[in-house]
Amino acid sequence: MTTLDAVLQQTDTGLQASLDRLFDFIAIPSVSTEGRYAADCRQAAEWLAGQLAELGLESAVHNTAGHPMVVGHGAAVPGPHVLFYGHYDVQPVDPLALWSHPPFEAKLAPQPDGETHILGRGASDDKGQLLTFIEACRAWKSVTGTLPIRISMLFEGEEEAGSPSLAPFLAAHGDELRADVMLVCDTDMWDHDTPAITTMWRGFVSEEFEIICGDRDLHSGMFGSAARNAAQVMGTIIGRLRLDDGSVGIPGFYDGVEELPEVIREQWATLPFDGAKFLNDVGLTTPAGEDGRSVLEQVWARPTCEINGVWSGYTGDGFKTVIPARASAKLSFRLVAGQDPDRIRELFRSFVEALLPPDCRVVFKAYAAAPAQMMPLDGTLLAKARAALADEWGRPAALAGTGGSIPILGAFKERLGMDSLLVGFARFDNRIHSPNEKYDLSSFHKGIRSWVRILAAFSEIQP
Amino acid sequence: MTTLDAVLQQTDTGLQASLDRLFDFIAIPSVSTEGRYAADCRQAAEWLAGQLAELGLESAVHNTAGHPMVVGHGAAVPGPHVLFYGHYDVQPVDPLALWSHPPFEAKLAPQPDGETHILGRGASDDKGQLLTFIEACRAWKSVTGTLPIRISMLFEGEEEAGSPSLAPFLAAHGDELRADVMLVCDTDMWDHDTPAITTMWRGFVSEEFEIICGDRDLHSGMFGSAARNAAQVMGTIIGRLRLDDGSVGIPGFYDGVEELPEVIREQWATLPFDGAKFLNDVGLTTPAGEDGRSVLEQVWARPTCEINGVWSGYTGDGFKTVIPARASAKLSFRLVAGQDPDRIRELFRSFVEALLPPDCRVVFKAYAAAPAQMMPLDGTLLAKARAALADEWGRPAALAGTGGSIPILGAFKERLGMDSLLVGFARFDNRIHSPNEKYDLSSFHKGIRSWVRILAAFSEIQP
Repeated sequence: MTTLDAVLQQTDTGLQASLDRLFDFIAIPSVSTEGRYAADCRQAAEWLAGQLAELGLESAVHNTAGHPMVVGHGAAVPGPHVLFYGHYDVQPVDPLALWSHPPFEAKLAPQPDGETHILGRGASDDKGQLLTFIEACRAWKSVTGTLPIRISMLFEGEEEAGSPSLAPFLAAHGDELRADVMLVCDTDMWDHDTPAITTMWRGFVSEEFEIICGDRDLHSGMFGSAARNAAQVMGTIIGRLRLDDGSVGIPGFYDGVEELPEVIREQWATLPFDGAKFLNDVGLTTPAGEDGRSVLEQVWARPTCEINGVWSGYTGDGFKTVIPARASAKLSFRLVAGQDPDRIRELFRSFVEALLPPDCRVVFKAYAAAPAQMMPLDGTLLAKARAALADEWGRPAALAGTGGSIPILGAFKERLGMDSLLVGFARFDNRIHSPNEKYDLSSFHKGIRSWVRILAAFSEIQP
Repeated sequence: MTTLDAVLQQTDTGLQASLDRLFDFIAIPSVSTEGRYAADCRQAAEWLAGQLAELGLESAVHNTAGHPMVVGHGAAVPGPHVLFYGHYDVQPVDPLALWSHPPFEAKLAPQPDGETHILGRGASDDKGQLLTFIEACRAWKSVTGTLPIRISMLFEGEEEAGSPSLAPFLAAHGDELRADVMLVCDTDMWDHDTPAITTMWRGFVSEEFEIICGDRDLHSGMFGSAARNAAQVMGTIIGRLRLDDGSVGIPGFYDGVEELPEVIREQWATLPFDGAKFLNDVGLTTPAGEDGRSVLEQVWARPTCEINGVWSGYTGDGFKTVIPARASAKLSFRLVAGQDPDRIRELFRSFVEALLPPDCRVVFKAYAAAPAQMMPLDGTLLAKARAALADEWGRPAALAGTGGSIPILGAFKERLGMDSLLVGFARFDNRIHSPNEKYDLSSFHKGIRSWVRILAAFSEIQP
C-alpha cells in the first residue's frame, strides 16, 4: 500500500471522529454580525487553535478590533508553501421559525437518494468546508507523523461581516503570512459529481441608507397627501434601481464593464449547466437579470444591485395609519471586472441624492467593498490540483466562476502578491445563508480525500 | 349666580379631580391593535362604565368579537336626545425610544408660553377628549343633581383598529342607540384660540400586501441578478403609487372626484390657516401632494395614498447579503366624496397585479374601509353649539374639514339615519399616533366648560 493509499484509508476509518469534530464546531454559535455572539466567536477561534495544535502547528489567536484571527504554521519543508484560509464565523439564523431543527445542533439526515445531509448553520459555509482541509492534514499526520508540505493556516471570524479587520491584520502580519499560494475551501462543486476550481468571482459594495423626512412620524388623516412620506420616497428610489429590462438604473453603472472573453464563454458552453433547473430548484422560472443574458452569465459575469433588507413605519399586528418620517434599506452590488467599488458607491449615492424630493435627507452607511477578480488559468499548482481532483472524482475538474465575492483574496493579491486556488465541495443547494443549511456527507468525506490527494500532488513539486 | 355659572364654576374647582381621573384612564394601556393588551382594553371599558354609573347613567359593558362596547343611558327628559360617542382604545406606542417619559404614566409639563401639556398616550386621542364630555356631565350632576338633557353614551375600543365590531353591534343594538344627534369629541380646534366644528372628513381604505417570489431567501452572491428579489418588486410597486407631481398613480383613482364646492373654498379662504407654518411645525417646507393644490385642500379635500409600513429581508445589525423571497407593506388611502372604498381597493389590487413580474405572487389582506362624508351645514343644534362655543372662546367657531376618517359616523348615518356634531378641542400639534402625544391643559379645561355650555344651550330647545 502506498503512503497516499494509507492516508486515504485513514480518512475513511476516521470519518466518524471527523464528523464529531464538525458537530462540536457547529455547536459554537459564532454569528459575527450580531454583538451578542462575540464570546462565541472567540470560542470558535480558540477551538480552531486547538485543532491546529493537534496537527503540530505552532498556533496563535490574535485579537483584532473585531473577532480574533487564528494563525498556525507547520514545519518548514522544501517545496511549495501554502497558506490555507477559512472563516469560522457564520450567518445569522433568522428567520428561526423556518428551520426544521435547532440550527446550532447539527444532525445527520439520510435522504431518499442515498445521500446524507449534515444539517446546521455553518455545516457548509464555512465550518464543514474548512474542516475538510484540517481533517486531511490530520490524516497525513496520523499516518506519517508529519505534514507532507509546508502549511500555514489563517482563519478569520468576520468574513460574513465584510472582513473589516483583515486589511489591518495583513498590514501588521503580512511577512509572516506570505506563502507561494493561498488555498481556500469556500466554493461549490460544478455539480453533484463534478469537482470545480473557481477562477473568477464578482466584487461587491454593500451599503445601508436611511431616508429622513420631517422630524416625526405623522398621522395620515391629519397630514396625508401634504406631508412627505419616507417609505414612499424609499420605494421610489428602490423602484428606479432596477429597470424593467433587468438592468441597473444608476447612470454610469456599466461604464468599464466588458463582455465575457470568448474563450471563457466557449468553456462555459461546454459545462453541463441547466439555467432553468438552477432557478427551478428555488421555485423560480424566469431569469430576473438583464434581458438577453444567460442565467450563468447573469450570476457569474454581470453586475447587479440587490435589496437585502427594508424597514419603515409600523410593521406590527393590525394597522397604524402613520406617515413614517424614516425609512431604511440595506443593499449590495455585485461587481465584475472593470468596475471600481468606490466609484460604484459614489454613483449610487449621487443617484439617491438626485431622486430626493424636498424636505428629505439621506444618511449613508458604508459597509464592505471589494473588486471583482479573475485568477490566472495556468501554473503548476493549478495543474497538480486538477489532476488530484480528477483522481478522486473520476472526471476533470471544471474551471468555474462564481457570483459571490471573496474579499480576502483581493486583499492578499494586493498586499502580498499571492494568487489563490479555490477548491470547494459545497453544492448549489446547500442553502447557505438560509434556513436549514446543509453539507452533504459525501462533500465532507470526499472533500477530505481530495485535499489528501492535492497535498500529495504538491509534495511532488521540487523546489 | 345662574345655574350655568354655578356649573362652570364647579368645572374650575373640580379641575384637579378631573385631571386625576384622566391620569387613571391613561394608565390603562388599552392598545387595541396588539393582542397582548386585550385585558387592558377590557379594564378601560370597565373603568368607563364606572364613570357612567357615577353620573347616574344606566350602564353596561357588552362583549363583542373584539374589545367591549360601553353603553350608558341617562333619564329620559323632554328636548333633544344626544348620543355621545368616543373610543377608549389608543395607538401603539412604538418607537418607544422616542418617548421622553413612559407613555402610560401621564404627567404635566409646564411650557415656556404658559400652557401646560398633559403628556401620555391617549392624553388627546381620545381619552382626554372624551373625558371633557364626561366631566361636563359630572359638573352638571354635581351642581343640579341631574343632567340637563337626555344623554346616552357609547364607547368602543377598536377605533384605532378600524372599528370591526361596530357594524354588528349597531345591527343588534340600533334601536337602543338611536338619538336625535350624535356628539363626538375627537377632532381639532381651528387654531390655539379658535374652536371648530368639523363638517367634512375623508374616507379611507387600509390594506396590507405581501409579495412572494420563489420559495426561500437566497444568497445574493450565488443568485444575484438572476433571482427575483421581492424587496425590489415591492419598491417598484411603491414607487409607482405616487407620481412625481404628487398625484396617485393608480389608473381610475380620481374617477368621480369633484372639485371643492365654491362656497366651501371661499369659507376656507377666510380662515386664518398658514400652510407653510402647518408643515414647518413638523419639520417640512414643501407640500408633497398634488401640484397646484393648497396645503388645506391637499389634507382636507383631496384623496391620497400613504405607505404606513414596509418590511423585508434582513433588518438587524450588520449585513446579510440575502435576496428576500418576501416583502410586505401596509398602506392606506384617504378618500373624498365620489370615491367608493370597495372600488378603490379593487383598483389598487389590479394595479399591483399588473406590475407583478414573472415568478411573483401577491397576497392581499383587507383592513377597514369607510367612505368620505360631508355633514349638513344648517340646523338648530349646530347653531346652538356654535353660539355656546363662541361664549366660551370669545370668537366664532370655524366650520372645518378634516383629513382624517371617522368611520363610525358613516355607520350611524347609514344604519340609524343620525347626523353627527363634531366638536373637538385637540390642537394640531398634539402628536397623536406619535411619540410624546400631549393634550393642552387648556383644551381639557375649556373643553369641559364648552360642553357645559353646549348642554345648557341644548336644554333650551323645546320639543
